[in-house]
Amino acid sequence: MRRLNFYERFSRAFHDHPSLSKLLIVFTVSGGGLVAYSESKSYDGVNIAAPPELDSKKKRVVVLGTGWAGTSFLKTLKNPSYDVKVISPRNYFAFTPLLPSVTCGTVEARSIVEPIRNIVRKKNIDICFAEAECIKIDAENKKVYCQSNQGTNLNGKEEFVVEYDYLIIAMGARANTFNTPGVVENCHFLKEVEDAQKIRRTVIDCFERASLPNLGDEERKRILQFVVVGGGPTGVEFAAELHDYVNEDLVKLYPKVKDLAKITLLEAGDHILNMFDKRITAFGEEKFRRDGIDLKTGSMVVKVSDKEIYTKERGSGETSSLPYGMVVWSTGIGTRPVIMDFMKQIGQTNRRALATDEWLRVEGCDSVYALGDCATINQRKVMGDISSIFNKADKDNSGTLSVKEFQEVIDDILERYPQVELYLKNKQMRDIVDLLTDSKGDVAKESIELNIEEFKSALSQVDSQMKNLPATAQVAAQQGSYLADCFNRMEKCEENPEGPLRFTGSGRHRFRPFRYKHFGQFAPLGGEQTAAQLPGDWVSIGHSSQWLWYSVYASKLVSWRTRALVVSDWSRRFIFGRDSSRI
Amino acid sequence: MRRLNFYERFSRAFHDHPSLSKLLIVFTVSGGGLVAYSESKSYDGVNIAAPPELDSKKKRVVVLGTGWAGTSFLKTLKNPSYDVKVISPRNYFAFTPLLPSVTCGTVEARSIVEPIRNIVRKKNIDICFAEAECIKIDAENKKVYCQSNQGTNLNGKEEFVVEYDYLIIAMGARANTFNTPGVVENCHFLKEVEDAQKIRRTVIDCFERASLPNLGDEERKRILQFVVVGGGPTGVEFAAELHDYVNEDLVKLYPKVKDLAKITLLEAGDHILNMFDKRITAFGEEKFRRDGIDLKTGSMVVKVSDKEIYTKERGSGETSSLPYGMVVWSTGIGTRPVIMDFMKQIGQTNRRALATDEWLRVEGCDSVYALGDCATINQRKVMGDISSIFNKADKDNSGTLSVKEFQEVIDDILERYPQVELYLKNKQMRDIVDLLTDSKGDVAKESIELNIEEFKSALSQVDSQMKNLPATAQVAAQQGSYLADCFNRMEKCEENPEGPLRFTGSGRHRFRPFRYKHFGQFAPLGGEQTAAQLPGDWVSIGHSSQWLWYSVYASKLVSWRTRALVVSDWSRRFIFGRDSSRI
Repeated sequence: MRRLNFYERFSRAFHDHPSLSKLLIVFTVSGGGLVAYSESKSYDGVNIAAPPELDSKKKRVVVLGTGWAGTSFLKTLKNPSYDVKVISPRNYFAFTPLLPSVTCGTVEARSIVEPIRNIVRKKNIDICFAEAECIKIDAENKKVYCQSNQGTNLNGKEEFVVEYDYLIIAMGARANTFNTPGVVENCHFLKEVEDAQKIRRTVIDCFERASLPNLGDEERKRILQFVVVGGGPTGVEFAAELHDYVNEDLVKLYPKVKDLAKITLLEAGDHILNMFDKRITAFGEEKFRRDGIDLKTGSMVVKVSDKEIYTKERGSGETSSLPYGMVVWSTGIGTRPVIMDFMKQIGQTNRRALATDEWLRVEGCDSVYALGDCATINQRKVMGDISSIFNKADKDNSGTLSVKEFQEVIDDILERYPQVELYLKNKQMRDIVDLLTDSKGDVAKESIELNIEEFKSALSQVDSQMKNLPATAQVAAQQGSYLADCFNRMEKCEENPEGPLRFTGSGRHRFRPFRYKHFGQFAPLGGEQTAAQLPGDWVSIGHSSQWLWYSVYASKLVSWRTRALVVSDWSRRFIFGRDSSRI
Repeated sequence: MRRLNFYERFSRAFHDHPSLSKLLIVFTVSGGGLVAYSESKSYDGVNIAAPPELDSKKKRVVVLGTGWAGTSFLKTLKNPSYDVKVISPRNYFAFTPLLPSVTCGTVEARSIVEPIRNIVRKKNIDICFAEAECIKIDAENKKVYCQSNQGTNLNGKEEFVVEYDYLIIAMGARANTFNTPGVVENCHFLKEVEDAQKIRRTVIDCFERASLPNLGDEERKRILQFVVVGGGPTGVEFAAELHDYVNEDLVKLYPKVKDLAKITLLEAGDHILNMFDKRITAFGEEKFRRDGIDLKTGSMVVKVSDKEIYTKERGSGETSSLPYGMVVWSTGIGTRPVIMDFMKQIGQTNRRALATDEWLRVEGCDSVYALGDCATINQRKVMGDISSIFNKADKDNSGTLSVKEFQEVIDDILERYPQVELYLKNKQMRDIVDLLTDSKGDVAKESIELNIEEFKSALSQVDSQMKNLPATAQVAAQQGSYLADCFNRMEKCEENPEGPLRFTGSGRHRFRPFRYKHFGQFAPLGGEQTAAQLPGDWVSIGHSSQWLWYSVYASKLVSWRTRALVVSDWSRRFIFGRDSSRI
């Protein structure tokens, strides 16, 4: 509660005194790491419920994946009593928020990656890395099956099996095609570094091909029709980047075809950037219209052939087709086959991602954790536990709950059920006790006594505030460092549990449950303008947010090397423009 | 002669006063472009023999290739009376001397390339570029057949035909495998930027694969056996770069396998770097032995399988095999198929490259020029023209040649037959007249008269000094700017020919023939040490040459952008080391 209030007050201050925003920028730039710092420090005193088995030999921890969640776990892990194996098809961590910049060469691919071996080598922990893909998880026998993904000169693929005591699944997700025919064959995705590099080459390919002699104007137009499917932050940022690339750099080099290039953004919903504040959405749509980016909302893609993309209007049901040169598909995330297979094994069917509890433990199996885009937290409902809560709080077993009795378990309730806090905030209540008094009318606080039915009815609405966390880098990174912190203090917290009361059992939970803190989100809109939505619904749009974006991203990069490279890439772009060599 | 003497004196000064070398370095670094400048200025007043046809409409010039020769031609071309079409499968110029650095990430691929459209766009000339490969040259009908080399989403390959008035073939060469079985399938080459990027990925692949669990030590050793075939400057530089990469960067990240990595260099001849001074060869071989690079000279590769490379000792004929993880094949250059096909058409068979005359015109066809690695100049022999020379010089038709008569044609002879100058230099004669007096013994110079037989015998040895130019970037660049200069002054020189006397015809040649000026050559040997062989056999080895190398290469890069990028890459390498992410 304390921390949240701080942010609230912080953001309100900006509402009231807009000039403070400049101060924040200066502070962020000069401090170079404000947000990164606060984030990396955020889990002192959090914990997990799995009982640590104290063996003489080191526990084997297997981490699958080196994305935001896996890398954040590895960076935060400090306890040398584990034998850690990291398995990932990519031997590097990629700073994915800059991927759209890589597609147009604003930033180089190599500037946003850091070898995972480099990240872990200075740690005092046994961490070994294997560049391989996990192809099967066998939770029953505590084994994962892996396959090296190399080809060249190294005869066939290598398979091996790794045993674990704790398994951490942080494999992320894949692009979601919604089974639309032709998407996999004909579209570009924007999930991996390789995707971004391929898009960059294809943009140049399109311009080179459109410049060949002996082509009709219709054909040139088709080749230079770029289509972006999906109006989320990634799709919008890519469309904006591409527009800048074409209009700032390519028009100079391809003067003959510059007027033929066109960018179309297809969004199935009514608006782009619909997870953002309406002001941002409106500004983004207006800016795109001014820029000449063709925005088609309410337009669902039904099929993609090798030369045309077929859409259906959501309202009228009308279908139409658009000839294209390149399509980038960015409509959200889907489940990786190996995760799908694992979910089947443990009886979690018909889900997009692995269900975990609030301590990130996969439901239905032992010693397996899942975090990042491949997992969602199943938040426990207050109403499911309401009788247990009542019984636990009713210390004198009187059958009624006094405010005093209730106040003794308030902190535990707030910690165990974060939706309660959200509900109070939403109702603009300052204290959970207000919930109880509300239902009792004008009675003096101290004398209120509720029976079980009254208690149920008082809390009946709180679960309505539950929602899944977004599939963002921010969530994954916080989960990774949270889990590492639990592993760091596994033994200590076994002896002195730190978590909330177990309402449905005895004693306390060993660790505090995972709690996400939202630091805000950016939506770069091109032309050196960015929309920023910071906590407390503080919205900032324009050039100053662009500089905030620069400084936050520079500070959050994983190493001084990448920081130096990205900043020098940005400077290079300002001075020399973006490169258009097809390599 | 004047220029050569300057270089001779210059280099002798360094022999006598070694401290001057430091001065040179400082000068080169601070000047940042000494050599580049002198080179770019070198063809004022040179010319070519093709008669320009004066048409009302612009002459169509087609340039095939955007390597050193083609790009240098485009950069130097100033005459706006041409309609230039450039056709190349690569839309950029690559600074190839830095390719070995790209293989290990000392320099990034994108730092050494510059889009060809960027190079030509500020010129006041009609130059248009098409990204396509020339697949057939039809000199009879003055046409070239081209094919776009794109795949992705752009249904099939596009073919088109381009007509020309002048054709400039500057397509370079491909790697020469000497038809050794298995080389194309299993080896890496180092000719293109893509090759260097592939090598970089493969080196990391080898280390990652060797680090996988469940592998035997023998297998790990095999995977980390790197083989370089060919002890020329490229092979040697790559071996040195790889050694530095492994020992400076990778050992820290792959501590478990670092002792298994081994580099073997196979050279069929007796020594590596055999085109360099013996001191450089000896130093290089000694340094490689100290570094633990396994140097096998006199070892010919007879076959490459997917896991082993088979060699035969040149002396003993003994064969042996070596298991490997990666082979880089760098044994010189071969002919591209399209050039081979063209040579067949014009009756130039059994040659490695297109034969041209001293004005770079392809022998046996009209208005076609060839330069760079795909061409060799057929230097005209003095002895083939000896009677014509005698007749031309014998102005009074007396049947004998006086020294005075001879002196009048000396400059023309020296210009038309550069081997004469080399011969004199080799024999340490100061003047061509010494050749004549030599054969006559003690007679006073003024009274010497030679008949045709005496003249023939006096010059009988001069052709022995003829040799082909090396296939280097330096030669190609000079040829490109020479040819552009001829095109720039085509009309002017038609009216006022500048070339030497036509000994076998009447009048003068329109342009001076192409003359190569050697500015020296570097052989980087790793560990911040480079061998430099400068004109006049001045040899410098060690750290100071490395700095000379840095400054010369930085100054010769094609644009300020690439210059800034390469220098920042070098700094990045010094500060952070080389990146090992597999992208």
